[in-house]
Amino acid sequence: MSAPPTQDVFLAGVSMTAFGKRPGDSVKTLTAEAVTAALSDAGAAVADIEAAWFSNTRQPMLEGQNTVRGQIALRPLGLTGIPVVNVENACASGSTALLQAIHWLRAGAGDVGLVVGVEKMVFPDRPDRVAAAFAGGTDIHDREAVLDYIRAMGGEAPTDGRSLFMDLYAAQARAHLARFGSTPLDLALLAAKNHTAAAHNPRSQYRTAMTASQVLADKPIVFPFTRAMCAPVSDGAAAAIVCSARGLKRLGAAGRAVRVRGCALVSAGVRAPDDLANHIGRRAATQACEQAEIGPADIDVVEVHDATSYAELQQIENLGLAEPGTVGARVATGDFALGGRTPVNPSGGLVAKGHPVGATGLAQLFELTTQLRDEAGPRQVEQARIAVAENGGGFLGVEEAATVVTVLERWAA
Amino acid sequence: MSAPPTQDVFLAGVSMTAFGKRPGDSVKTLTAEAVTAALSDAGAAVADIEAAWFSNTRQPMLEGQNTVRGQIALRPLGLTGIPVVNVENACASGSTALLQAIHWLRAGAGDVGLVVGVEKMVFPDRPDRVAAAFAGGTDIHDREAVLDYIRAMGGEAPTDGRSLFMDLYAAQARAHLARFGSTPLDLALLAAKNHTAAAHNPRSQYRTAMTASQVLADKPIVFPFTRAMCAPVSDGAAAAIVCSARGLKRLGAAGRAVRVRGCALVSAGVRAPDDLANHIGRRAATQACEQAEIGPADIDVVEVHDATSYAELQQIENLGLAEPGTVGARVATGDFALGGRTPVNPSGGLVAKGHPVGATGLAQLFELTTQLRDEAGPRQVEQARIAVAENGGGFLGVEEAATVVTVLERWAA
Repeated sequence: MSAPPTQDVFLAGVSMTAFGKRPGDSVKTLTAEAVTAALSDAGAAVADIEAAWFSNTRQPMLEGQNTVRGQIALRPLGLTGIPVVNVENACASGSTALLQAIHWLRAGAGDVGLVVGVEKMVFPDRPDRVAAAFAGGTDIHDREAVLDYIRAMGGEAPTDGRSLFMDLYAAQARAHLARFGSTPLDLALLAAKNHTAAAHNPRSQYRTAMTASQVLADKPIVFPFTRAMCAPVSDGAAAAIVCSARGLKRLGAAGRAVRVRGCALVSAGVRAPDDLANHIGRRAATQACEQAEIGPADIDVVEVHDATSYAELQQIENLGLAEPGTVGARVATGDFALGGRTPVNPSGGLVAKGHPVGATGLAQLFELTTQLRDEAGPRQVEQARIAVAENGGGFLGVEEAATVVTVLERWAA
Repeated sequence: MSAPPTQDVFLAGVSMTAFGKRPGDSVKTLTAEAVTAALSDAGAAVADIEAAWFSNTRQPMLEGQNTVRGQIALRPLGLTGIPVVNVENACASGSTALLQAIHWLRAGAGDVGLVVGVEKMVFPDRPDRVAAAFAGGTDIHDREAVLDYIRAMGGEAPTDGRSLFMDLYAAQARAHLARFGSTPLDLALLAAKNHTAAAHNPRSQYRTAMTASQVLADKPIVFPFTRAMCAPVSDGAAAAIVCSARGLKRLGAAGRAVRVRGCALVSAGVRAPDDLANHIGRRAATQACEQAEIGPADIDVVEVHDATSYAELQQIENLGLAEPGTVGARVATGDFALGGRTPVNPSGGLVAKGHPVGATGLAQLFELTTQLRDEAGPRQVEQARIAVAENGGGFLGVEEAATVVTVLERWAA
């Protein structure tokens, strides 16, 4: 499973739309914006695309658009006739779609593919459906098991209609605080780092630098989280053009391509809540880094799935970038900020940049590709050569239902 | 795209549950039944499965279970930790999931995978949601385009809450009748053939042999269809264990395996309604048969996606098994029945066997694998060596949104 892959795969073009509340936009318009930009970035035409993978998680429950969402959203762009696959894995859908495209390339089934993630989540007139779509990322036929988990971790069932996921992450965060002596300030430092980075990201939903004090003083959501530590609800899209070496040559896109060195998907396991050595994020990271033949010291820049700032803390540990319980001290010294040892979430992360579920994984790859190309402007990580993304979603048992870790590498043709 | 694949892929085990109204069952129980049977058929254990693909189209809209359906349904079976991918393509979801697993095998990413299709569609207390889930297989933001198409083909917008798809197929059927002189009797002969075959299929939803006269005398749905020419709403599941040559050896399952010779997915194209040479089903068939290096004369047994009997007629033409307009005469002579030249839908097809959307494509492969193993009992096609399945779904433009054609071959280790 984790042997180094034999055939090179590249990202030839990437894109993301601005994330945020976009009342004038639809899945179709967001798709058009992201696909057009990714094609342009790769120097590719519609006719170059041999197959497409489409990542979306909300259209059935929020709009009643079911099952062939990709074909419907891509058709107005002239992307007709080719294979289109609709892929879901909750918040990890985008990178799961990428993985299917990688298999297609490595199988020799084609040379140039398109991966698109799109989400229209902001429906102010449909709060019940929005909440139901979040709840649907857990086992809705065994909701008691989810609530039992929250209660066993010292929490309470949410009553205010907020996403259940905030409570699930909060339960894990409190356990981490109790066990390792980490503090709400540690989480606030991570969130402040991301909000501050996002001020330099024109596509970010929020672009206001924050201090840890400001994060702690923000509206409480569920202890230990304040609003600034939680990803907002967002509209947005992101896309990538994926190629074999032959496809890259055909497009003439070698100059700015990045190489995919590893990509591993795993699902929720069976473990004790405190067995963090087998955390889904650690298992995914281990597999992806084995594929890439890299260790933590090789990683230059990281995007992790901070649906809450606790998830960022946990994933920094999972990647081996900090010993358990030391993230707070390390973030305080700037180790994970721009200019630090291993910058994490230079894009602003989910808490600031936004989190349109089906697009999030591909937006992480947009950021990392931009970094590896030295095109990130004021948020550029210097001499970035190896970049890692972690994208996780849903909840099952005691952890995310699905997590993907992807390793990208700067590449010079 | 259609070069012969380089690495062999096999179905080592297959299963399908009985299809029908199963009020005591859920997606979880149907999944358990199909997966357990497929593992047993392959002589495989849960621990042999390295990755899984899950095909379902109804849980979000009918039950509120969103996006990580596969992980949730597979977990009680001990299938935890491994990669799980949720795949949709309307009625073609099951074989689209298979195609993703084939790419994974050919990419060298693993050796033994599981593909599962499951649908729980019968909710007598939720007729509005059931109808909405069908409608969601077309562009729900451009419903006028769908209705315009029906009207342009001489039909009317349905008013009785039936699936819009019956009207879409009926519009095409009427055009075919007008152009080629085929008749409602031709469709009735196809439906009667399938209902009669289904009498020998213990897993079929309906198992009552019918004559063409009985089919024509059944309840009218929309001209030229009667109820017996239309697939019912069904609960059910089907599964397959897919292997590389190495995986097959590891399982010791070579004795009853069948080889996948071709598998092609295409999407709705842009064509004139009467340009049947570019029909999506013909494009998929051409690609899959090119991969398999076979022609129509090589095909011994076929399962096609007869959501209505017109779809069967069209796909028999698409596969090159009959010249346009000649299917009726050919079915009248028994060419497509058991014992005929090229038996089509020996399982009973969708009109009799049932059509639990996400499971249908894999159920076709269950039937064909059973045929290639000489294990079909009273419905056995003699000396079947090459088998072809066509699985199509959704509607976009003037045809299905997605179609997969798969070619299987008897294989002796």
